[in-house]
Amino acid sequence: MKTFWTAVTGRFLVVGLLVTGSVFSQDSTSYTDTKEAKMKKSIGAKTIVFPTPVFVVGSYDKSGRPDAMVVAWGGICCSKPPCVAISIREATYTYGNIMARKAFTISIPSEKYIQEADYFGIVSGRTEDKFAATRLTPVKSDLVDAPYVKEFPFIIECSVIKIVPLGLHTLFVGEIKDVKADEAVLGKDGTPDIEKIQPMIFDPANRAYYGIGKYLGDAFSEGKKINK
Amino acid sequence: MKTFWTAVTGRFLVVGLLVTGSVFSQDSTSYTDTKEAKMKKSIGAKTIVFPTPVFVVGSYDKSGRPDAMVVAWGGICCSKPPCVAISIREATYTYGNIMARKAFTISIPSEKYIQEADYFGIVSGRTEDKFAATRLTPVKSDLVDAPYVKEFPFIIECSVIKIVPLGLHTLFVGEIKDVKADEAVLGKDGTPDIEKIQPMIFDPANRAYYGIGKYLGDAFSEGKKINK
Repeated sequence: MKTFWTAVTGRFLVVGLLVTGSVFSQDSTSYTDTKEAKMKKSIGAKTIVFPTPVFVVGSYDKSGRPDAMVVAWGGICCSKPPCVAISIREATYTYGNIMARKAFTISIPSEKYIQEADYFGIVSGRTEDKFAATRLTPVKSDLVDAPYVKEFPFIIECSVIKIVPLGLHTLFVGEIKDVKADEAVLGKDGTPDIEKIQPMIFDPANRAYYGIGKYLGDAFSEGKKINK
Repeated sequence: MKTFWTAVTGRFLVVGLLVTGSVFSQDSTSYTDTKEAKMKKSIGAKTIVFPTPVFVVGSYDKSGRPDAMVVAWGGICCSKPPCVAISIREATYTYGNIMARKAFTISIPSEKYIQEADYFGIVSGRTEDKFAATRLTPVKSDLVDAPYVKEFPFIIECSVIKIVPLGLHTLFVGEIKDVKADEAVLGKDGTPDIEKIQPMIFDPANRAYYGIGKYLGDAFSEGKKINK
């Protein structure tokens, strides 16, 4: 009933606004909700969130040749067991590689490797040896049947535990078997330091890369200032 | 056979390095692979990638009261249909809300809302009215049965199309029904501008928030400089 009422008054409100401007500006909360909703501009059902990552996903093909592609559709998806999800189109060479070997790595490039990382997303491993072209070094994981990128400072080794077809993309859930990082990007306590790793951010709205910005505050801490 | 050989020589290499330092430094590629692998430090099977997002996920509870929580385990997971994945623990209030209504929103806070966003991740909607506490405004989506945060500049409305239990977390795939943004964060061509939105990045290694950094280059462009 409330929903119906909001919908009905919402329609009148829009008409009202169109005809008489802000005549309803002193309305109650339910009116305000609908009015404010109209203030945000709809830009359609697009695949845009901020941030998205720049994951270089490593795999071996049938012949054992290392390949890698860039994936921006992905992220951590479970804490126990530790898992990361990546979504890949069936048309890619990587898709077949991961389906066959049930393993992949994620290598996170520092921003200085922007050209190499982007190259991994432009050409197909079906026709190109991307490691040779970028002169980057594939390293065979000692835990899963996939290679990672030696020059990138932070890598994750994954074993596929779930495959979820969604449409154009298939979501692969990889259980994280290990995380490895260059000593140079670890803080004093041995924890990876985002400011030293200098990962890139992908902006899907304008298809551009950004760096990491300034430190803003600590999680599970900033919120405690609310109501104080 | 090659794998076996690499493993065997790898072990000898490690022993050799321990005993005699860089005696093997002129080794062939297969040796180098294994040696370099040892140079990256293992930090265990942890849920760390860079970047992870700061998604404020909105839902209604049984009584119709709006709630929101922070989710860092998520990201776009399919282009057609446009989908986003979020992973949520069963213990959360939001889990029950989404299971019941099969809908959620994602509101992306600007960095100036760091306190409010973090608060959404500290307390439970089971005991607190988080919108009241933060003085933020819930707006009922006109497309899905969930509220979003009026004050946050960029929001996504989702209908749940798949639920994938993974362990501690359950992955919800939401089909994106619409994306809405404040006019103030749109560029001249109507495309959302990441520099105006000022989304936050969550660093799971040190549990801290960062801002967006500098523009680095265009995707599908930087890589063309390789091999030229």
